Amino acid sequence: MPVGTQATVKALSQQDLLTLDADIILGNAYHLYLRPGHERIERFGGLHGFMNWPRPILTDSGGFQVFSLQELRKITEEGVQFRSHLDGSAHLFTPESVMEIEHALGADIIMAFDECTPYPATEEYARESMERTQRWAQRCLSRHEQLQSAQVAAGRPPQALFGIVQGGVYRQLRQRSARDLVGLDLPGYAIGGLAVGESRAERLATIEDTVPELPAHKPRYLMGVGLPQDLIDGVVGGIDMFDCVIPTRNARNSTLFTSTGRVRMKNAIHADDDSPLDAACECITCTQYHRGYLRHLFQTNELLALHLATYHNIHFYLRLMRSMRAAIIDGDFTDWQQAFFATYQDG
Amino acid sequence: MPVGTQATVKALSQQDLLTLDADIILGNAYHLYLRPGHERIERFGGLHGFMNWPRPILTDSGGFQVFSLQELRKITEEGVQFRSHLDGSAHLFTPESVMEIEHALGADIIMAFDECTPYPATEEYARESMERTQRWAQRCLSRHEQLQSAQVAAGRPPQALFGIVQGGVYRQLRQRSARDLVGLDLPGYAIGGLAVGESRAERLATIEDTVPELPAHKPRYLMGVGLPQDLIDGVVGGIDMFDCVIPTRNARNSTLFTSTGRVRMKNAIHADDDSPLDAACECITCTQYHRGYLRHLFQTNELLALHLATYHNIHFYLRLMRSMRAAIIDGDFTDWQQAFFATYQDG
Repeated sequence: MPVGTQATVKALSQQDLLTLDADIILGNAYHLYLRPGHERIERFGGLHGFMNWPRPILTDSGGFQVFSLQELRKITEEGVQFRSHLDGSAHLFTPESVMEIEHALGADIIMAFDECTPYPATEEYARESMERTQRWAQRCLSRHEQLQSAQVAAGRPPQALFGIVQGGVYRQLRQRSARDLVGLDLPGYAIGGLAVGESRAERLATIEDTVPELPAHKPRYLMGVGLPQDLIDGVVGGIDMFDCVIPTRNARNSTLFTSTGRVRMKNAIHADDDSPLDAACECITCTQYHRGYLRHLFQTNELLALHLATYHNIHFYLRLMRSMRAAIIDGDFTDWQQAFFATYQDG
Repeated sequence: MPVGTQATVKALSQQDLLTLDADIILGNAYHLYLRPGHERIERFGGLHGFMNWPRPILTDSGGFQVFSLQELRKITEEGVQFRSHLDGSAHLFTPESVMEIEHALGADIIMAFDECTPYPATEEYARESMERTQRWAQRCLSRHEQLQSAQVAAGRPPQALFGIVQGGVYRQLRQRSARDLVGLDLPGYAIGGLAVGESRAERLATIEDTVPELPAHKPRYLMGVGLPQDLIDGVVGGIDMFDCVIPTRNARNSTLFTSTGRVRMKNAIHADDDSPLDAACECITCTQYHRGYLRHLFQTNELLALHLATYHNIHFYLRLMRSMRAAIIDGDFTDWQQAFFATYQDG
């Protein structure tokens, strides 16, 4: 899922995203609550009407953003008091208020308000945090069901509330978190609190510990991950959905993903190169422009650099996911993986 | 002509420019000489190959930029010594070297190296400057003809060298400059040294003084102008071609041109407005998005704001020129002008 934090996937238009055939994009409740305001977006017919996106949208609850504020926030059982990163104004997010925000935004999938447990965290803190996340999930569900009834009665489409598994890197906590959440019988489950500094081994172990607890017939979503190899790891581990700013943010930093690995487009080595960024790629960036021109655009800080790079990286990521899906359906995922890493080198 | 100073029209792709049906775009010899270097661009097959633009290109000689450097440049009969605005390195532009640069860039129309006389300027300075520009035009033509022969012999397409009329706001100087240039029998002529601070009356008078001296069957190009009403003034005065950064630069500052006048899209008044930017416009920005969303994109400094605004402004300018052309052909330009200003209010 391409990330459109502020109701736009940075450097792409909605027409670009349709051309890229993105099935679903992300929005962020924290950012949209602050600007332009969830009630304003509701008056435009929700995020779909506001940004003119006809396909599914998932909103993150903003838990990750609020907890990232560090000095600016205070956690209680009630919720999180925080100060806006924009103007320092004081706000309170509770599980109930976040549901109200996400209902106003009107995304197809909405995430429960959780605490993204930091890394490292002691087992004691991870347990407390996970248990609070579980109590909050229950409160989210209660408020969501109230709002949903009124909404459906008013002829508006229902929204799917996903829960978020926490528990740090502690197996027992992750398993308890997953089981307790599954007890709420939600339409989908996410694994949160990863990609926050843990090792690859810790991440793989956490996925391995958690996924078997989550029902196979409901989507499993690994939040905030990752590099191409991390997506492959996730799929191998049983993950169905991902979101990450890496393809868009790295694009703006001139780091492009190709069939042979990462390319740093600002490097002088590309200045006289009239070959495409990735000869194996059929996107506009690769079929219409060569490396020398892309390097020039980055070198001169031109906006077109950000657009062409983002377009390519999103194309790369969506194609990566599509080809994994096709390989699973065809029953030759292991072959696919070998073929991918035969050309793709990283790190 | 949309301005693509550094081989890109800021915030648009070449695909966008083709969709907008731009017939010709601009590049700038000064900027491209510094980055990525004209010899590098030549190795890519000139600007057309470098930026993958299949339609005509005009390169400005860089005279305007070099003379804008103020403290960093020194004018002699030979040419202009200047220091790069990027790294302070020392460079010399002569009429001959600029022709070499513009031949390497390979645009379809190339501009002579002139001195853009500042405003205000004494009549004495304006005369000296204009006479030097005339001597430089002769030197440009000589070097251009040498380069052209070799080029055509090598099977490369010929380039059209346009001369630039100078003379400040002094009628006699403008007329002498125009007559002397016409004596060189160039394929087109530009009026330079306007839009540098003079009044509208001075500009109109200068156009009126100059245009009758320029042959009607060759293109007349007014450089660096302007707002929509300035383009109409120019067309009324007999001008065929314009270039200006106003549509693109103003777009990035959230100033958008509509059939009813200028709109400042950052203003709070648009925050809850679900109407299109311009109901009379059929561009993507106006048919796919509403003012509330565009305002949000500017408010949050999102890249999509710059793209959608630029796309619309270029669409507006190209449509303005097309509709003037159609009105002239249909013989009802006066009616057209009245109809335009019946809705368009400015200032």
